Amino acid sequence: MTGKPRHMHLFLVIGNVGQHHGAWREPDSGIELADSIDFHAEVAQRAEAAKLDAVFIADHLAMLGREAHAPAQHLEPVTVLSALSMRTESIGLVGSASTTFNEPFNVARQFASLDHLSRGRAGWNIVTSAFGEENFGSDPLPSHASRYERAGEFVEVTKALWRSWDADALAVDRDSGVYARSERVHPINFQGEHLTVSGPLNIPRPPQVHPVLVQAGTSADGMAFASRHAEVVFSAHQGLPMAKRYYDEIKNGAKRLGRDPDSIKVLFGLSPILGDTQKDAEERQRALAGLLNIDYAKQLVAFQLGGIDLTNYDLDEKLPLDVLPDPTTINRRQGRFDLYRQLIEDGETLRRLTEVEATAAGLQVAVGDVERMANEMITYFEAAAADGFILIPPSQRVDGRRLLSEVIPLLQERGYARATYQGTTLREHLGLARP
Amino acid sequence: MTGKPRHMHLFLVIGNVGQHHGAWREPDSGIELADSIDFHAEVAQRAEAAKLDAVFIADHLAMLGREAHAPAQHLEPVTVLSALSMRTESIGLVGSASTTFNEPFNVARQFASLDHLSRGRAGWNIVTSAFGEENFGSDPLPSHASRYERAGEFVEVTKALWRSWDADALAVDRDSGVYARSERVHPINFQGEHLTVSGPLNIPRPPQVHPVLVQAGTSADGMAFASRHAEVVFSAHQGLPMAKRYYDEIKNGAKRLGRDPDSIKVLFGLSPILGDTQKDAEERQRALAGLLNIDYAKQLVAFQLGGIDLTNYDLDEKLPLDVLPDPTTINRRQGRFDLYRQLIEDGETLRRLTEVEATAAGLQVAVGDVERMANEMITYFEAAAADGFILIPPSQRVDGRRLLSEVIPLLQERGYARATYQGTTLREHLGLARP
Repeated sequence: MTGKPRHMHLFLVIGNVGQHHGAWREPDSGIELADSIDFHAEVAQRAEAAKLDAVFIADHLAMLGREAHAPAQHLEPVTVLSALSMRTESIGLVGSASTTFNEPFNVARQFASLDHLSRGRAGWNIVTSAFGEENFGSDPLPSHASRYERAGEFVEVTKALWRSWDADALAVDRDSGVYARSERVHPINFQGEHLTVSGPLNIPRPPQVHPVLVQAGTSADGMAFASRHAEVVFSAHQGLPMAKRYYDEIKNGAKRLGRDPDSIKVLFGLSPILGDTQKDAEERQRALAGLLNIDYAKQLVAFQLGGIDLTNYDLDEKLPLDVLPDPTTINRRQGRFDLYRQLIEDGETLRRLTEVEATAAGLQVAVGDVERMANEMITYFEAAAADGFILIPPSQRVDGRRLLSEVIPLLQERGYARATYQGTTLREHLGLARP
Repeated sequence: MTGKPRHMHLFLVIGNVGQHHGAWREPDSGIELADSIDFHAEVAQRAEAAKLDAVFIADHLAMLGREAHAPAQHLEPVTVLSALSMRTESIGLVGSASTTFNEPFNVARQFASLDHLSRGRAGWNIVTSAFGEENFGSDPLPSHASRYERAGEFVEVTKALWRSWDADALAVDRDSGVYARSERVHPINFQGEHLTVSGPLNIPRPPQVHPVLVQAGTSADGMAFASRHAEVVFSAHQGLPMAKRYYDEIKNGAKRLGRDPDSIKVLFGLSPILGDTQKDAEERQRALAGLLNIDYAKQLVAFQLGGIDLTNYDLDEKLPLDVLPDPTTINRRQGRFDLYRQLIEDGETLRRLTEVEATAAGLQVAVGDVERMANEMITYFEAAAADGFILIPPSQRVDGRRLLSEVIPLLQERGYARATYQGTTLREHLGLARP
């Protein structure tokens, strides 16, 4: 690290008015603009002014009836990021796309195209999809193992497609009439168990060669996949010890596969609830909790615990471990299940689980004033439990604004966050080599 | 028609530097910018200044080795149109997406999202894909009939998904915490031979309800499909009698199905080669032809004729009819095959076929000065052989510019083209009712 400036890498989750399932009810939430690109452009521009590495849009392929209580719908990530490429100049643009319910040729094209549109700012969050099978004629959902097998082939295919045009493939020789050098444009002839794709891609090599590959695996399959393929990993954990353990496992996993551990950045997921003072922030946390419909919040947790019935459990009691199904029967979100199982083992109440789920989808909730929030982030960073953070504000207009206009500048002041963009591509922002 | 202003509906094909396969070799083609959004934004902005109904981007899912001679690659339509929604204000944004190599839930989402981003300017050109099967593990290409069967189900699914949120489904009631009225968000529970999709869509009702449905079927299956589903049809024919026959068949087909014939607009495909004088334009046509590699141009035609070998045929001789395969064996582009078969029957030379294919992909080539071009368009329009035109310039920078800055203003002057936008959505531009 000598001589190199070392700072946090920072992603901001956008694409909704806030992650907290009740925050849309606040007066200033902006919920009336939820399906308008202007709202998301405003947030992305603020994130760019704060010199973040990227904005990030998650994706879901079904609403599970949640729309009764919260904005479960959202615009589609690839279209939104393409639009944002015209409303921003420097910030990375990262979105989720499913390897289970897409064709790799289509995904490779869309992210290659986004990388061209944005001049090298595209990133793809690789997801295997935990639900939505009923919308793809694929019910029941393929097994966790089978989804990850397909994902592995899928990523191999997309990487090969992105490299199918050599850097010097375009001749554009008006005199001879040779447009591309055919011998520099290669079929990929991939044949796997799940996928067969001949190639080449019909788009020349993207500016970053590969759009940055992002992943959020916390299950065993997910972590093995991340260690092999990911360049950025999201860490969904509670507390420093869990975060540190995960960080070390990912880095060591990559090392065992012969990768430079610095070529895979671990971003710790953090949901910042901010106030003028610590007391204000705690008050805000309670106010947000008060906006949740409790039956709905229980259902959110019940879904992640394998679809059990929690109706008759009291919010303030500890959940008995034997309420949980056998972990080997969990096919949807193994990582989230394991996390909540751990919290239950640690003696947490159902209320705490609903707050973790409804505030931050399993990520760490941090409550504090600006100074404390910055210190919390520095603690994780200095403990080598994170190379940076994926920030998921409960409300974009309240906590998100404060995060970008107060917490990040404080981190910049202390040398922990970038104060200016040095490069122009997401790969450069992240300090990742070109493949 | 009494009282209603009646003018041509006009689409401009964009997404490449020009349709003519040799035009990239001209000094001013802009080919160095082919993969830059700025080129396409500039063209779209010019089309908007000329008050066209829409810009249109075709799609291909493989290059067939053509990249050696011409820009066979291109950015992906959905991403480009999403970006263009931020660089334009009023013009419609229409793109192709395949029903054979996509999932309807994904296509419905992307076009719903584009419709929200653009505030009601999205259109989807429904294609069944004539090649690219090797990139989707789907080799051999499914039969023509089977592709159209799937396309029929696919469109039914996407329409149902776009309507799955009632117009008043969003409650957004902060006090009660009711976000959407669940009873106004409907599963679609579609079960067909090819597709099974439960829904609802996870995006509220698009501004146009359905993005405008466009199609270009010229085969029997294609025309039956168009009569049933399409709101805009592209007509790929040579000469007024063929155009008129097609127009009447489409309108009558719609009528037989109980549709108002005015609810389906037939746009005649026209490739304008423009010059200061008629002589200049003809000179330009010869110059463009001179930029074609002749072996390559023969291969383009041979592909459309079912993959026959034309190497040993002289350009200036008439092709014998018995060179053609049995029409029932044609699985790729039946409409194009039928068109070229007709031209061969009419005694056209191989040279003429290469020019039609390499200049305009089977659409009518028109050669003339500005006045003559406007008159040609008026002739088709007044003969009720077209409700308007899909314009596909050989070169955007040469013929496209002249078309938009000289031909369209002349048509406006004469009352045949819109001089100002009256509505804000593509559906309004086209005079189509909301579904």
